[in-house]
Amino acid sequence: MTNPYITISRAIERIRPASADAMRRADARQLNLTKPPGSLGRLEDVSARLAGIFGSERPQIDGKAVVVAAADHGVVARGVTGYPQEVTAQMVMNFLGGGAAVSVMCKRLGVRQIIVDAGVASDLPTHSELRSYKIGRGTGDISSGPAMSPSQARQCIERGINLAAEVVGSGVDLIAIGDMGIGNTTPSSAITSAISGRSPDQTTGEGTGRTPEELRHKVQVVQQALDVNRPDPDDGLDVLAKVGGFEIGVLAGVVLGTTMLRRTVVLDGFISGAAGLIAVALCPIARDYMIASHVSAERGHRAALAFLELDPLFDLGMRLGEGTGAVLAMPIIEAAAACLSEMVTFSEAGVSDREDDTGYDGGERR
Amino acid sequence: MTNPYITISRAIERIRPASADAMRRADARQLNLTKPPGSLGRLEDVSARLAGIFGSERPQIDGKAVVVAAADHGVVARGVTGYPQEVTAQMVMNFLGGGAAVSVMCKRLGVRQIIVDAGVASDLPTHSELRSYKIGRGTGDISSGPAMSPSQARQCIERGINLAAEVVGSGVDLIAIGDMGIGNTTPSSAITSAISGRSPDQTTGEGTGRTPEELRHKVQVVQQALDVNRPDPDDGLDVLAKVGGFEIGVLAGVVLGTTMLRRTVVLDGFISGAAGLIAVALCPIARDYMIASHVSAERGHRAALAFLELDPLFDLGMRLGEGTGAVLAMPIIEAAAACLSEMVTFSEAGVSDREDDTGYDGGERR
Repeated sequence: MTNPYITISRAIERIRPASADAMRRADARQLNLTKPPGSLGRLEDVSARLAGIFGSERPQIDGKAVVVAAADHGVVARGVTGYPQEVTAQMVMNFLGGGAAVSVMCKRLGVRQIIVDAGVASDLPTHSELRSYKIGRGTGDISSGPAMSPSQARQCIERGINLAAEVVGSGVDLIAIGDMGIGNTTPSSAITSAISGRSPDQTTGEGTGRTPEELRHKVQVVQQALDVNRPDPDDGLDVLAKVGGFEIGVLAGVVLGTTMLRRTVVLDGFISGAAGLIAVALCPIARDYMIASHVSAERGHRAALAFLELDPLFDLGMRLGEGTGAVLAMPIIEAAAACLSEMVTFSEAGVSDREDDTGYDGGERR
Repeated sequence: MTNPYITISRAIERIRPASADAMRRADARQLNLTKPPGSLGRLEDVSARLAGIFGSERPQIDGKAVVVAAADHGVVARGVTGYPQEVTAQMVMNFLGGGAAVSVMCKRLGVRQIIVDAGVASDLPTHSELRSYKIGRGTGDISSGPAMSPSQARQCIERGINLAAEVVGSGVDLIAIGDMGIGNTTPSSAITSAISGRSPDQTTGEGTGRTPEELRHKVQVVQQALDVNRPDPDDGLDVLAKVGGFEIGVLAGVVLGTTMLRRTVVLDGFISGAAGLIAVALCPIARDYMIASHVSAERGHRAALAFLELDPLFDLGMRLGEGTGAVLAMPIIEAAAACLSEMVTFSEAGVSDREDDTGYDGGERR
């Protein structure tokens, strides 16, 4: 049985804010668990958010998956990256073969890996684990025109929404999003500037450039993309069509679909942050359903996270993409949910309270 | 078959530095893996350290365990903590019942939990999962005399060494250390001051005190402990006997035993950091075998980590102890090892190199 195809407007119609009531119940439950109040730090905030998402003060996380979307970018013609476009397709094959970083992490951490050809320029062989959406064969050069047509932008988002619905339907509660696409920091910088209003020199990082001249050139290319296309910051589809990427659009759709079904999205680095920005431009409530895993070494990522009002869980100086940071955050998120849901309370455990308090204040402040 | 009992001097005799040669081979291998050089950030440093520990550029981590040692502290008589001593024993029962934070995390993340009564004041029931070492029934009040006798200090360390040998023998490669003991930030501050040379106001945190007066009192108690006992910073056993705790000593022994057997110790927060300091005072090479998981909200932890020259993986504002931060770091450490050991190289994957480089420079700097 296949589910009916979900359009963007239908998805947005179904999206509801996270449950403030469940979050309050989670906070109340936290205070009764056998630990000093607040002693799990950020894990307590994460678990309260999960409670709001799942609508329960005892959120349960079972299946975990990462969607890695790949595509090519016409702007590579402007020399914004030093590496051949063929690497995008080669890395897709590497994911399928299990030899890439994200694949190795997934295997080790029990995360299902879902690989999508969103718009790789070259042909890829048929493979049982590859979703071949191929919404285009690489985008247009955004420094001289739009990345894709409005219809292609819509297709990206809807493919992502429907993929998320399928993945959630198979029992996945926590979906990480990751990217692969030579040249894709340039559209990510353009998206981040368009939506956050920050200038390209604040959203553009070194990329593969190694000299100040190369960085200046990349900033200029991003500025040209904005000047030529004039994306409307209040219209996520317009931003995607004009300065986006196929993989970024599919990932934004995954965010919306996951949000619609009240599951949790784990953002990775800069490119997945740009996908988050597109999703939030389409539906601001999507922000409630995202957790930021890490902060990337790439400059624009901080700007994207600031606009999304998300505080990353860790900073390990990673800048690989592929969803690696997001997959690495999954055990932490799972542990946060499990502590809230499965720890016992003071009265259940027969642990003494401090007279003037709700619980013992032990731990590292004993 | 039981192994022969390992003494401190025998353990230290057997300790060897991590393999610099394996670390060099790991760095060389990293450069050939299918990712931009350096793009896994801190994970690359962690995996190089693991290579040095395991003596192989393809380190394998299989079993994981946390040793949670519990004990009581006579210094609670000085009002350094607002909570009743009985909570230590109650929390041990909570660990055994599976309802505490560390127990829930262990179950979720596939980590074996090993609970030790190092020196809890009250009787505890016999339990198949509880190691009853009971080297004392709570320490003496360190503000007026030594915590324990030299013979008890030696017993703590040797119990820990032999426990580590047993755990490693059962197939565990990664051992986290955690603590439970009402009042144990006070001896941890005294140990950190004694070994690092920093004054008690730099190593003492709020604890359960809520006013500046309570903190000033605690700093004075730590200073008294140092003045009365005059621990010798170059003699780890002397520091442990004079201003330590039974659980801290057992954990220091676990560090030495794990080091002796070339496996990896994951430190938790402030109390486990104090155990690390004792271990390093006994054998400086032990430093090579430790990974710092997180930085605790408790003030003295930063001083301990600075002396150990360890950089924590994350800061989630946690201050629970029990080994929770260390257990949470285990999947990250496992993933770091797996990436180094299991990712394929450029030539194996047929991924193109940049002409002037060792590999494609994609990822978030594409």
